[in-house]
Amino acid sequence: MAALDPVLNDIDRDLDNALERLFAFLRIPSISTDPAYAGHCRDAAQWLEGNLTALGFETAIHETSLHPVVLAHAPKPGKPHVLFYGHYDVQPVDPLNLWETPPFEPRLSLNAKGDKQIVARGASDDKGQVMTFVEACRAFIAMEGELPCGVTLLIEGAEENGSQGLPEWVAANRDKLAADIVLVCDTSMWNPTTPAITTSLRGLAYFEVKVTCADRDLHSGFFGGAARNPIHVLSTIIADLHDSDGRVALPGFYDGVRETPADILEQWRGLDFTAEKFLGPIGLKEPAGERGRMLIELIQSRPACDVNGIIGGYTGEGTKTVIAGEASAKVSFRLVDDQDPEQLARTFEAFVRERIPSDCSVEVTCYKGSRAISLPFDMPELDIARGALAEEWGVPAVTIGAGGSIPIVGDFKRLLDRNTLLIGFGLDDDRIHSPNEKYDLRSFHKGTRSWARILAAFGER
Amino acid sequence: MAALDPVLNDIDRDLDNALERLFAFLRIPSISTDPAYAGHCRDAAQWLEGNLTALGFETAIHETSLHPVVLAHAPKPGKPHVLFYGHYDVQPVDPLNLWETPPFEPRLSLNAKGDKQIVARGASDDKGQVMTFVEACRAFIAMEGELPCGVTLLIEGAEENGSQGLPEWVAANRDKLAADIVLVCDTSMWNPTTPAITTSLRGLAYFEVKVTCADRDLHSGFFGGAARNPIHVLSTIIADLHDSDGRVALPGFYDGVRETPADILEQWRGLDFTAEKFLGPIGLKEPAGERGRMLIELIQSRPACDVNGIIGGYTGEGTKTVIAGEASAKVSFRLVDDQDPEQLARTFEAFVRERIPSDCSVEVTCYKGSRAISLPFDMPELDIARGALAEEWGVPAVTIGAGGSIPIVGDFKRLLDRNTLLIGFGLDDDRIHSPNEKYDLRSFHKGTRSWARILAAFGER
Repeated sequence: MAALDPVLNDIDRDLDNALERLFAFLRIPSISTDPAYAGHCRDAAQWLEGNLTALGFETAIHETSLHPVVLAHAPKPGKPHVLFYGHYDVQPVDPLNLWETPPFEPRLSLNAKGDKQIVARGASDDKGQVMTFVEACRAFIAMEGELPCGVTLLIEGAEENGSQGLPEWVAANRDKLAADIVLVCDTSMWNPTTPAITTSLRGLAYFEVKVTCADRDLHSGFFGGAARNPIHVLSTIIADLHDSDGRVALPGFYDGVRETPADILEQWRGLDFTAEKFLGPIGLKEPAGERGRMLIELIQSRPACDVNGIIGGYTGEGTKTVIAGEASAKVSFRLVDDQDPEQLARTFEAFVRERIPSDCSVEVTCYKGSRAISLPFDMPELDIARGALAEEWGVPAVTIGAGGSIPIVGDFKRLLDRNTLLIGFGLDDDRIHSPNEKYDLRSFHKGTRSWARILAAFGER
Repeated sequence: MAALDPVLNDIDRDLDNALERLFAFLRIPSISTDPAYAGHCRDAAQWLEGNLTALGFETAIHETSLHPVVLAHAPKPGKPHVLFYGHYDVQPVDPLNLWETPPFEPRLSLNAKGDKQIVARGASDDKGQVMTFVEACRAFIAMEGELPCGVTLLIEGAEENGSQGLPEWVAANRDKLAADIVLVCDTSMWNPTTPAITTSLRGLAYFEVKVTCADRDLHSGFFGGAARNPIHVLSTIIADLHDSDGRVALPGFYDGVRETPADILEQWRGLDFTAEKFLGPIGLKEPAGERGRMLIELIQSRPACDVNGIIGGYTGEGTKTVIAGEASAKVSFRLVDDQDPEQLARTFEAFVRERIPSDCSVEVTCYKGSRAISLPFDMPELDIARGALAEEWGVPAVTIGAGGSIPIVGDFKRLLDRNTLLIGFGLDDDRIHSPNEKYDLRSFHKGTRSWARILAAFGER
């Protein structure tokens, strides 16, 4: 076995420098969904390229149909080879006024319990997590002169935009991506002291609905009571999406959804996963969604529908007596088991269209969808990773399902025929996609140590 | 009778100069609902003060709790005295991208029929209309050296913000507002060739509803299916506001609403007021609102409810998998007959609150409300004005109800015990409150001539 202790000691000793490197990465506003930030996305790719080249990786930037990917190789013949996937792009920052400090000026802060936290957009999702793996590689190379197994890093720049362009790039570059297993660091721990390996992911279907009634904005005094209001139309559609039991009311929506096996439900009952613990920290008490289901079912093994945004009419300060000409909403579905995002797109569009008055119109935009994913429990790498994590954290890693989607995991299976181990060090209170996103310094530090242990263990196979 | 022909001739001759004066007024971005434009509101008041002082009015700017009012006097002992009311403030301009030219850079354009139109925010509502009266006064003073009757002008700056501060100011300054009748130029013609005197106005109640669920924005992958979504909550409230027959579903909402008398309905049936004519020009075909009512009833004698704006979650380009912490909507009601805005406020807030989940919260803001207004048909001034309008336009003026609210008319009755004649030269396609607002040059020109005739006729009493 490669000498692990010097590597772990180096990670501890070099933590301040590692943090400086992460801060430099976090200062780049690489928002992938807004075309205005395309140049910054490229900056982030170039920053990574420079960093990985300096570590000795054979590194290149490759173009896709949206933002470039960074590909870095360090082969080790005769040893297992891992493909690490992450993303350098980040979510938009609005509402900006709710950030305590500017989102791209990373800082360390202390929470009420005295934990140090890295605060910045992307601190947790996914720059901080990506850098746990990069820093583990750095420590090995610094101490041992080489990695314990072969490593390829594939870091993309459009994950927050549905990984646009990535599946096509992967399909065209299979030869560059040969590996025994894929590793992803974009998920969460079970809790701050218990690591987790995610073995299932919900799928996603995301739509935008724009309803147009009159061909202009109208005065509600003149036209109120006679002209159709697109916000009414849109609100009615949204209200109709759920029945009174919190179930999604689209015809056939639950086709392909399987009941969670009794033994898994039994296991979940033992987890003490309460509304108080899960919803309390975000200021809520009662689970929404399907009535009569366990909370953990609702977020892991049941599908869901959410409106992610809505806008129409006058939204400034004070009053304006206007009937808007148009209104729009973004609606998304989390999918499980065999739910088919393409079938859902047809059902959803029909559901919307039959609620549009005959003299109004609607435009339904369908963004990229992805099916849910379940990973096999009998992967040998799963046991190896579990063991390495238990050594670092002192408790066994929990295997869980995740509510969110990482569509590329399905593409890796389909295009590369490789399974993926999802091991992340985020926490549920990281505020990813929200103002004041943070990543615990402990997540960053022990996450790096965890990867060092996992890489060493893979090298021993 | 004062010599009217020279006055009318002067109005014709001076039209280009009058237009220049109006353009100068229109260039001032006096948006009253946005505090950032408070200085511009004051600029507009000062522009009017200068203009009216130059005409010989004894003019002063008076402070209110919001924007200042302009008060101008030209007494004429022994003659009737009119109080003219208008407003110098304008609506916000968003969505700015739908304006063909900047809203505060007035221009003349030609429509498809070759009519000249003044295009700018406020061209019709209400700067253009205010200036028809001012220009009529100007022509009299220029040709005759004096006005045919006593005139006071009261031009306020917060009409588009519910006339905030004005009733209090009127109550405190009754002595400055003595008059036989109030004149308002803030309404529309029956059609481009038929003038109208508005004898009833719907009331208004305007609310903002802000729903808060989680105390932050959430990732819809982690929390979707378990965390309450404020856009769902708000959409359900909005959907519940109407029943399937298009009636407002608030308990007791129709209390105080009287059926339109059969003879009036009969008169309306003769007006050829069709959906094709009223809704066709704005791109619609089918009247919304209460089923089984005539279109003219819906907009003149029936109450209505509209959502004037809604916002929540991610509204930028592309996708963001977020569950918003909060969402808000602006909801208003048009009132008729004896509907009480204060009672409605209580009913509406209760209706909203009973639809808020127990772990979420709501803030209901109630903006100024006003009751509906009906003016007596036996005012002698009504006949005088009708006669003067018939001379100018060659057809009798129609007396109509208006769908919109001008709350101050009720205050003039209550505080000054004076009736109001609502005579305006706007057209239904003026796009007031909308992008590319316009005022026909013909409205401006013949509106000015109409006021000259009305003032002359009042002077003969």
